This record gives sequence, structure tokens and C-alpha cells, in this order.
Amino acid sequence: MHDPSRQHRAPGFPSPSVREAASMYGTAVAVFLVILVAALQGSVPPENPFPYRIFLDPQGTLELSWNVSYVQEAVYFQLFVRGLKAGLLFGMSDRGELENADLVVLWTNGNSAYFADAWSDRKGQIHLDTQQDYQLLQAQGTPDGLSLLFKRPFGTCDPKDYFIEDGTVHLVYGILEQPFSSLEAINTSGLQTGLQRVQLLKPELPVPTMPADMRTMEIRAPNVLIPGQETTYWCYISELPPGFPRHHIVMYEPIVTKGNEALVHHMEIFQCAGGFESFPHFSGPCDSRMKPNRLNYCRHVLAAWALGAKAFYYPEEAGLPFGGAGSSRFLLLEVHYHNPLKIQGRRDSSGIRLYYTATLRHFDAGILELGLVYTPVMAIPPREPAFVLTGYCTDKCTQLALPAAGIHIFASQLHTHLTGRKVVTVLARDGRELEVVNRDNHYSPHFQEIRMLKKVVSVLPGDVLITSCTYNTEDRKLATVGGFGILEEMCVNYAHYYPQTQLELCKSAVDAGFLQKYFHLVNRFNSEEVCTCPQASVPQQFASVPWNSFSRDVLAALYGFAPISMHCNKSSAVRFQGEWDLQPLPEIISTLEEPTPQCPASQAQHPAGPIVLSIGHGRHWSPEPLPPKAAPLRWILEEVMDSALFSHVSETLAAREAEGDGRALGLPDTGSAAASP
Amino acid sequence: MHDPSRQHRAPGFPSPSVREAASMYGTAVAVFLVILVAALQGSVPPENPFPYRIFLDPQGTLELSWNVSYVQEAVYFQLFVRGLKAGLLFGMSDRGELENADLVVLWTNGNSAYFADAWSDRKGQIHLDTQQDYQLLQAQGTPDGLSLLFKRPFGTCDPKDYFIEDGTVHLVYGILEQPFSSLEAINTSGLQTGLQRVQLLKPELPVPTMPADMRTMEIRAPNVLIPGQETTYWCYISELPPGFPRHHIVMYEPIVTKGNEALVHHMEIFQCAGGFESFPHFSGPCDSRMKPNRLNYCRHVLAAWALGAKAFYYPEEAGLPFGGAGSSRFLLLEVHYHNPLKIQGRRDSSGIRLYYTATLRHFDAGILELGLVYTPVMAIPPREPAFVLTGYCTDKCTQLALPAAGIHIFASQLHTHLTGRKVVTVLARDGRELEVVNRDNHYSPHFQEIRMLKKVVSVLPGDVLITSCTYNTEDRKLATVGGFGILEEMCVNYAHYYPQTQLELCKSAVDAGFLQKYFHLVNRFNSEEVCTCPQASVPQQFASVPWNSFSRDVLAALYGFAPISMHCNKSSAVRFQGEWDLQPLPEIISTLEEPTPQCPASQAQHPAGPIVLSIGHGRHWSPEPLPPKAAPLRWILEEVMDSALFSHVSETLAAREAEGDGRALGLPDTGSAAASP
Repeated sequence: MHDPSRQHRAPGFPSPSVREAASMYGTAVAVFLVILVAALQGSVPPENPFPYRIFLDPQGTLELSWNVSYVQEAVYFQLFVRGLKAGLLFGMSDRGELENADLVVLWTNGNSAYFADAWSDRKGQIHLDTQQDYQLLQAQGTPDGLSLLFKRPFGTCDPKDYFIEDGTVHLVYGILEQPFSSLEAINTSGLQTGLQRVQLLKPELPVPTMPADMRTMEIRAPNVLIPGQETTYWCYISELPPGFPRHHIVMYEPIVTKGNEALVHHMEIFQCAGGFESFPHFSGPCDSRMKPNRLNYCRHVLAAWALGAKAFYYPEEAGLPFGGAGSSRFLLLEVHYHNPLKIQGRRDSSGIRLYYTATLRHFDAGILELGLVYTPVMAIPPREPAFVLTGYCTDKCTQLALPAAGIHIFASQLHTHLTGRKVVTVLARDGRELEVVNRDNHYSPHFQEIRMLKKVVSVLPGDVLITSCTYNTEDRKLATVGGFGILEEMCVNYAHYYPQTQLELCKSAVDAGFLQKYFHLVNRFNSEEVCTCPQASVPQQFASVPWNSFSRDVLAALYGFAPISMHCNKSSAVRFQGEWDLQPLPEIISTLEEPTPQCPASQAQHPAGPIVLSIGHGRHWSPEPLPPKAAPLRWILEEVMDSALFSHVSETLAAREAEGDGRALGLPDTGSAAASP
Repeated sequence: MHDPSRQHRAPGFPSPSVREAASMYGTAVAVFLVILVAALQGSVPPENPFPYRIFLDPQGTLELSWNVSYVQEAVYFQLFVRGLKAGLLFGMSDRGELENADLVVLWTNGNSAYFADAWSDRKGQIHLDTQQDYQLLQAQGTPDGLSLLFKRPFGTCDPKDYFIEDGTVHLVYGILEQPFSSLEAINTSGLQTGLQRVQLLKPELPVPTMPADMRTMEIRAPNVLIPGQETTYWCYISELPPGFPRHHIVMYEPIVTKGNEALVHHMEIFQCAGGFESFPHFSGPCDSRMKPNRLNYCRHVLAAWALGAKAFYYPEEAGLPFGGAGSSRFLLLEVHYHNPLKIQGRRDSSGIRLYYTATLRHFDAGILELGLVYTPVMAIPPREPAFVLTGYCTDKCTQLALPAAGIHIFASQLHTHLTGRKVVTVLARDGRELEVVNRDNHYSPHFQEIRMLKKVVSVLPGDVLITSCTYNTEDRKLATVGGFGILEEMCVNYAHYYPQTQLELCKSAVDAGFLQKYFHLVNRFNSEEVCTCPQASVPQQFASVPWNSFSRDVLAALYGFAPISMHCNKSSAVRFQGEWDLQPLPEIISTLEEPTPQCPASQAQHPAGPIVLSIGHGRHWSPEPLPPKAAPLRWILEEVMDSALFSHVSETLAAREAEGDGRALGLPDTGSAAASP
């Protein structure tokens, strides 16, 4: 393998400080790198090539657009870098850490610039991947910056690579402010880095026909002065016109104030409870002491948007009812501002635009809450990297509450508190797991969006829905019990479905009597430490458990064995009739397998090492940004590869002449995709 | 993908019965298939190309030779088929089952013959692999049969493929007696099938220099009449000459009577205990009522061989001491005859040839027993597919018993009784697992051989050795407890090492008091079923546990938590001095990962479908075997591939003219490898 550190370096080349380097190299690389067209194996879809777009950093200098090809099982990325310094890292990691990350690296050693598929080790040091799975399709300079176009298969056969799957993906980036003698010389710990969460694999769904009488309503908090602090939840009460009749929401989309795209993290509209005459108008931080208590009764989700999400469409046959008798006219808009740079004085009027119709669709849509009851009997021991709790919606409940033709889940919002790391809901029938309703193996409590399902899941009477959440409590000293508090935990899947039924809540918790047997048993084993007297509360009991592998494993064994108490409810307080205590756990005789990466057949065709972009003609690095119309430069592109097997790839790379103003010249096939935004 | 079932079939072609087909097609395919040279990507090593050889079937019609290329991470197979009928299956599966197997299939539909990489589903039906990872290098007919040469990477990216790893591999085969219209028409359930266990990945070790004064001694049971039953263990006592002084065994090898290669399954030589003046001479079945009881004192392993193994060499610096004062002159040879066809009247004089020297080497070699103490406190619940028990050799014991420079383990023999499925021993230092001493993920109690380690493992004072065994008790109704009985279980690794120390045994078991806590606890949870009174034995207590997921999980939790009782012994009865009860479990803060398949970079170069061998010139199938010198035939070889990507492979295949006598003609590169045995 070619080692870039062996590249020739000009004698006496000074070793610049970070600050010097930043000014020395400035936008130099951005201007120097003009054109690179590598082996274009799969061409980019011609129309609307990059429908999804976010800023990676709060300054808005890294703009990522992407598209998904489910046929090729690959993601196409277009990364636009404003004011490129000496390079950058971009990639993915399990939970957004810069260690153990799967990265593309664009870097320079002062003489040449390189593009490579790399990975960072546990200490943040960068290494070249043995297999180059990020395929560079195009690099294009503009007066503003640099645009890189590259693709990545969902799965590769490289053990150092991230497997792109459904759900949240933690994108990471790092800014190189100075040249590095080699890839291995880079360590992420010294860089300006960050992360952004997105759902990369957006479902490919046809846009439903919109009704002719569709109207819109904008719910936004006008002219908010974004506080100069990292996290703000802004609460704003708005109100439907008096006498506003029953309508169906058929779609909604975000309205983000221009310039604030990197600050507005997520937004939700809640409908307030129907029982109150009115709600006080309020516009302020949700944690403000000035916030009226009554706003706590605004909890029914009408719409939710998070960063990277696009418009949300209801299926053509269903709409979300709002307005009309018995429903509150009051709506609460909650906007989460994420302002890590603590920018001051920024004004914002972001919100959500609802599209609704008076011509009610065939079905009302509803929301069914699956998972665990909010109760301390379900607890997570401390110091656990991945403890799993499971909540059931049993066959007995679905048998009683669902119509014979079943219900159709088309969207889902997963929910836990701070220690949640994974969430999955699976549908089982006759003891066999049939399909996944929604799975997020990289779930983050900081990124909860309503997600359309790739495929509508139909649930029949007698089916079982199993929702499992995986928690990380490594930083906690005491057990984390279930409950409403932010330091307590939840495991919930809000399933959006139609036709609406009376069933609002289908959740479970371990039987409380069996939990007492557990405390007894731990006492017996450890010689009396947990009070099993009647006055001790369950959280107190959990707090006094002596945690070790035995008490942990036995708690897990209890949750996997003991009977459950079911909440099969019409509303949060009203149960369906029947015996719901001491119910047996659903018996599952066959389980679904976790998805695993499929290796692309074409992997061997990729280059084996970094792609080099030499800057020819002996030009020196300029401390000044080059003028937009500089003298012509000659670009030498070469593949650094030690294997003859891949030589056909290098043959497709050619030296080119281009104007220094950075206009793209003669790009085959992907001209339209290459236009910078 | 080309579907072989769409191949043209002669109109009115009769559908022959199995018996008819057997006579109709007889050796026809063997004679017709003469030459096929496919893309020879990696050529076979030139010298001694197939050092390992076994018969797959008890009749000796399928003879497999193989070689391993650790550089290519691939196995080269040469399969010689005597009297080929209408084709065969050959492959690998987890434990030798014909369902869920990874197979190569050679079959004919009456018109053409095919070779393909395929897999069998849970019902035994054969399907084509999407990726063809068995690469056919050559097919060659001889008057006796057909020789196939093909290679397979250790790991592929095909999820239907078996991952070839260290330890036991279960090879499977099936005989096709009649043509099949398509691959999918084949089901393994209707075929004559079988399995053979081998260690495919033999270590590549240099042969040590042999001493100049080396002598040999053959230990064999002369002229045994092999009983006409499936399983016989034959016991034979032989004796060293009186006054035979201390020697070092430096090597040994099997002597298998010619013609009995498929019957002699494994052989072991045990040295009898030193305390007895003499042992009665005996030659007969080991389970015979005539066998003298004293032979039970012949347990010290001197040599062990199993099917497929070659000569065993001690490292140059060590030898196994035998002879001399204090050691018994009496040796017990045990030969396991595996005779599933119940062949009668066969005579056998197989045994083991010892190579020894009077010039003692620098070190005595020794055997250290690792794993679990033979005690019922270690038990496996019934109905478990994969329950793990772990035995420890603690830091305290190695600190006390090992020399400062440590010991060097160079070979290992794993041992369990009937329910053992996997065994692994790992070395840990300072709480971190460092390396695997020996791992067998497809361990079979029916295939226990002493295996040379690929790499000598050095164990220092203070190191920990962790031996884990995985058991399958799905067919048992009661718990399986530890013990000597064949229906009880063991978990042992006999580690062969030097320099010999006093430490003979370093094993553990859960503390008996903590096990009583477990029985109490299960009673508490299930309302009193296990007698915890003093007169109840541990096997009785285990027999009365009400087994469910809770009692199972809590037992596993107990074994993972409770303190252990250590056997750190000089001999099976004499402990090293110290406190060995209520010892803490070794704390392991980082564990090794299981090996995973590395995908070969060249995978995309393989054909995408079966290889067809058409039989040209309108010749009809002959019910008679063709005479050895038939008229010239024309061979048409074509690749069935629907992808242009792979067309370069098909270009390397060509139509050839060849003599009907089946001599290999003009084979490039692999001529020497192609010679039939």
C-alpha cells in the first residue's frame, strides 16, 4: 500500500502553527482542487439528484445533500464546503463519536491533496481502509468553496466500515486547519469536530394526490429572539378560529427562517386537552417559570418535524382529525433551538405549515402508544452498557380492541429518555415474529422524529406487538426506574395508523408481586439489604439493591419470565374490560434476524488506496487567497495503487487543464448533479 | 440467472427409477466428463499438492485430498470419485447435517452435466448460490472414475456459505443415482448421504529435525477381527522391554492396515499407572466383560491419532518422557473402529508408530488439564440449544505453580462427553483476554484429536486460562450434571506443553454453598420443589428443579457470579498448598472477538452460475460402460452467465477435442496436480 507520508516534501518547508496554517492555506485547497472525475460506475439519478439537505455544523459551512438508491443499495453524497481550509473529515459512527468512525478524509501534505476512505481508531488516530468504499465521483471548485460528490454502498465487506441501516445515522465531521504529512498523522482529538443526526435512508414513497380544496395554516412563533444558550425549547400557544369545524390534516412541512437552518433542531405541534375553555397565550422558553401550568395539558401530538426531515404526508385514504366539537382550539408549538456556538441576537419565526381539507378522507388516522407503562417496576441497573427492557401489546388486547380487518401502521415515532440507545417494535403472529414495525439501532433521545415506514404494517386482532428498548446507564450509580421524569426512563413507540380505533395505549410492565419476589431473592443471596417492608417504595427498593452481575442477570431473567400487567386502554385512564393483571408473557417460538450488511458484488473494482491530486508547475502555496481569475494551472490526477488488478480504474483518471476560476469543465454524465447549490 | 431446468430435454426421455438409473448411467458420466479447465486464478502449490487425504464414505468410493493456502486464505480440494453414477454432492455444514449445508453439486439432467456452488435449505432442497465460491479448476476422467479439482476461500460474502475456521469441519456428501431435471429438483433426503469430520485447516509447521539416534516402536493390536458392528473400541495391552530406560518420544504416526482406511476412526496409547507390578495382557473390545478391571488404571495419554491427522511432532526442544524408573512398562492401545456398514470378517493390525530417542531433549513435555472439575455442581439445564459452562485456571494457581519463564503450550486436545458442541480456551493477562489457546466452534465428542497449535502459546505466572464449553441438551428431559459417566458432562482441554511442571490439573467448579443458595432461591420463586435438606445429593436436587427460563437464567447468572472452588493440583489428588475454596471469579475487563469471515477481494471475478458440460455429437446415454478406448468425443464447455461483467472468465473456457480414454490433455499449469491418485 502506498504510504502518503513518503511523499516528497519541499526542503525547509516550515512547520506552521495551526493559526498560521489557517491563514496560509486559507481557501487555497478550495481553489486548487478543481476537477476530479473518477470511475463513474453508477451514474446519479438525473432528476432532483439530491432531495435531502442539511448543514453539518452550526456555522453552516458544511452543507450535505444526499440521495438514496435502493436499487444499488448505495447513498450518494454531495458535500459542499464553504471556505475550505486544509481539508476535512466526514463520515459516520455508531453514536457520533469521532473515535471508531468510518470516514472520508480530504487532506493535503502541503504538496498534494488526497481523498481516501479511512477509519479512526479508539484513540482517534486515522488509518487508511484496506478497501476503499467511499467512491469519489467528482470534486469541483467554485469561488465559494469546494463540492465533493461521492457514493457509499449501505454495507461493505470492510470490518472497519459503518453499516448504513434504517433509522438514525450519526454523521460526523472534522475540519483540518493545517496540512498533515500523512493520513496517519491526523488525530481527531485535535480538530474542530461535530456531529449531526439524520435519517439517511429516507423511504421512497409516492407523493399522495392532494385534495382540491386543500388549505394551509402556518403555526409559527413570530419573531423569537433565540437565546444565546446551547439548548432552548421555545413554547408558543396559538389558536384555531372560533367554530373551526372538523378537518383532516393531510400533510405538513417545516417553515425554517432563512439563515437559521443550522439552529432549528426540531419542532412539534401539540393539541391541548379538550376539557378546558381556554389556554393562556404564551411565548417563551418551555422551562420558564412564567410558563402557565395549564400548558402541561397540551400533549396530543398533531405534527412533528426534526432536522433533515421533509414534508410529512398522510396516506391518501386517511387524515388526522382536528377542529370540531369536543376538540380544543388551542395548539402548542414547541421549537427546539440547538445553538452550541451561543450565537446572540438571532431572530426566528420558524414553525410548521399544516395542509388540511374540509372534505374528510375515508379514515381518521390515530396514534397508538406501544411499549412500557410509565412505572418504576421496570428498571435498568446502573453501569450497564446495553440493558434491554421490553413492553408488550398482547394478543388478548389486540383481539379485543382492533377491528376484524386490522389497522395499518404507516408511521412511527420512537421515544425514550436520556439513556435510550436502540428501539425496535416487532409484529408477531401465532408466536412467530413476522416483521419489524420500526427499528432504530442508533436511536438518540436527541433526535425523535415521526418517520414514515417504508412499508405499511397491518396489525390484525390477535397479533402481538413487542417493543424493546436498549439503555446505556454506564454513567449512573443507581438504578434508573421507569417514570415521567427526565432522569427516569420510558420505552415508547407512537404508532401512527388508520382507521382510528378506541385503543390508545397498549403497554405492559412486570407484575409488581413478582418484582417483590425478586427483592426477597436478592436479599436472600446477599444477606438482607433491600427493604421488602410495605412502606418501602419500588424506587427506594431499587436504590438499595446491591448491584452485581448476579442481581443484574436475575432482574433480566425476571423480566424475561414473570407475568405482566397489561394496560389495554381507551385513553390513559380507561381500560378495556377484562382481566389484565398477571398475564403470561407472549410466547415467541421464532424470531427475526437482525439485518446484516450485504457486500456489494462490485467491491473489487474500487481503488485500493487514496486518490492523489498533485498541484503541478511548481507553484508555491500562497498566503493570500488566489484571485478568482488566476493564471491557468495544470492538474495532475493520479491513482496511488499498488495492485495491477485495479489498474483499469487509474486509466480512467486523466490529467486535465482547467481555468483557475474553478468552473467545472467537461464533466461527463453528472454535469447537472455537479452544480453547486 | 440461468435456470438449468429450462435446458432442453430429449422428447419422450423416460423417467427412470433409481435402480434403473444406477445401471443406465453407471459410470457414464465418469467417462463422458473428461476435461474442464476453468479460470485458473491461483495455481496449486507445485510440490506435494495434496498432503491430506481421507475417505468420505465407508465404502471408500469418495476420496478427498486437500491442501491449505494460508496466503490465499483458501482450501484446495481434490475429490476422486470411483464409479461415478449420476453425480454427487460434497460440502460442509455446521454439524454434518445435510440440511442447511454449503455444497458443490455435480449433476446431470440426462443431456448435460453441471457443476455448481449450491446450498440446501432446512428441508434438504438444493438451491443455487447467488455467488459461486467453489471454483472448479479441473475435471478429469480416468478409467476408474472422476477427479475434480476445486478451491474455496475460507470465508465468502455469501450468507449461505459455511465459514471454514480452525478446528473440526463436518464434511458431507451425497450420491446422485439418477439424473435430475434441475438443481432445484434435488433433495438431500432421498439420497445416500454421509458425513466425515476432519480438521481442514491443518497448521503449517516446519518439520523439526529428528535426532540421529532415533528409533521406532510399533504399538499395534495384531490381527484383530473387526466386529461387524458400527462402533468398537478395541483394547490391547503391550509392554516395554524390561529395564527400558527413560526416553523421549519425539514423534509418532499412525499405521493403518491397507484397505481399512475407512474403518479405523481413531487410536490412542495410554500409559498405565506406575504403582502396579504388571498388567494382564488383553486384546478385545474395551467394553467386554472379560476386560480386566486393572486396565482402568491406564489413563495417561502418550499418543493420540484421529482420522485425517498426520504424524505428530514434538517441538525440537522437548520430548515426551517414557520408560525409566517409576514409570509403568505397560501401554494400552485403544483403536476405535467405525463400521457403519457392519462389514464382517475384516482383519486389522493398525496402531501407532512411536519415534523415540535416548538422547533426552532439553525439556520434558507435560500435559496440563484445564477446564471444569468432574463434579455435579456444574450442570446444564435440559432443552438447551447452547448452554455454556466455564472452568478457570486462576492467576493464583499459575503464580504458584509455573516457572518464572512460563510454560509453552504447543498442542491441545479438547474433551467433553456427548452434549459438547463447542470448546474454547483463552489466555488472559491482567484482566484482558490476550489470545486463543485452542478453539473449536464445531467440536464433536466423536472426533477428539490432539491438535498442534498454529502458534505456541506462552503462559506466565499470574496468567488466567479460561475454558468454556457449549452444550446442547435439547434431547434431554433432566439436567445434565458434571461427572465421569458418559451421560454426565466434562469440559476439559488437555494442554500439551513444556517444560514439564508439577502442575497437572488447574480446574474449577462453582462453590457448593452458593449452589445451595440457588436451590433455596428457586424454591422461594416456585414455592418449594427442590429438597434443600442435607440428605439430598446435588444430582437429586438438580433433577427436581422445575426448569423454565427463570431457573435456567438464574443458574447461568450464578455460574457467572458465584465464587469458585479451585483444583490447583500436582496430581489428581494432591493440591498445591493454599486456600482454594471460595475464590473470586477472575475479572475480565476486555474480551477477544470471535473470528469472522474476511471476504476475498476476488469474489466478483467468479462465474455467476453453474458451469455446463454439454455432451456433444448427439451421442445417446449408454446403458453399458464405455470401453476404455472409445471413439473421439468432442467436448463443449460453456459458461452459463448472464452478466457481461464476468465474460472474461467464460473467454478462458474453450471447446477441446480429447481422446475417450480420459487421459488429461494439455492442462496448463496444474498438470502435476491433476494426476489421479
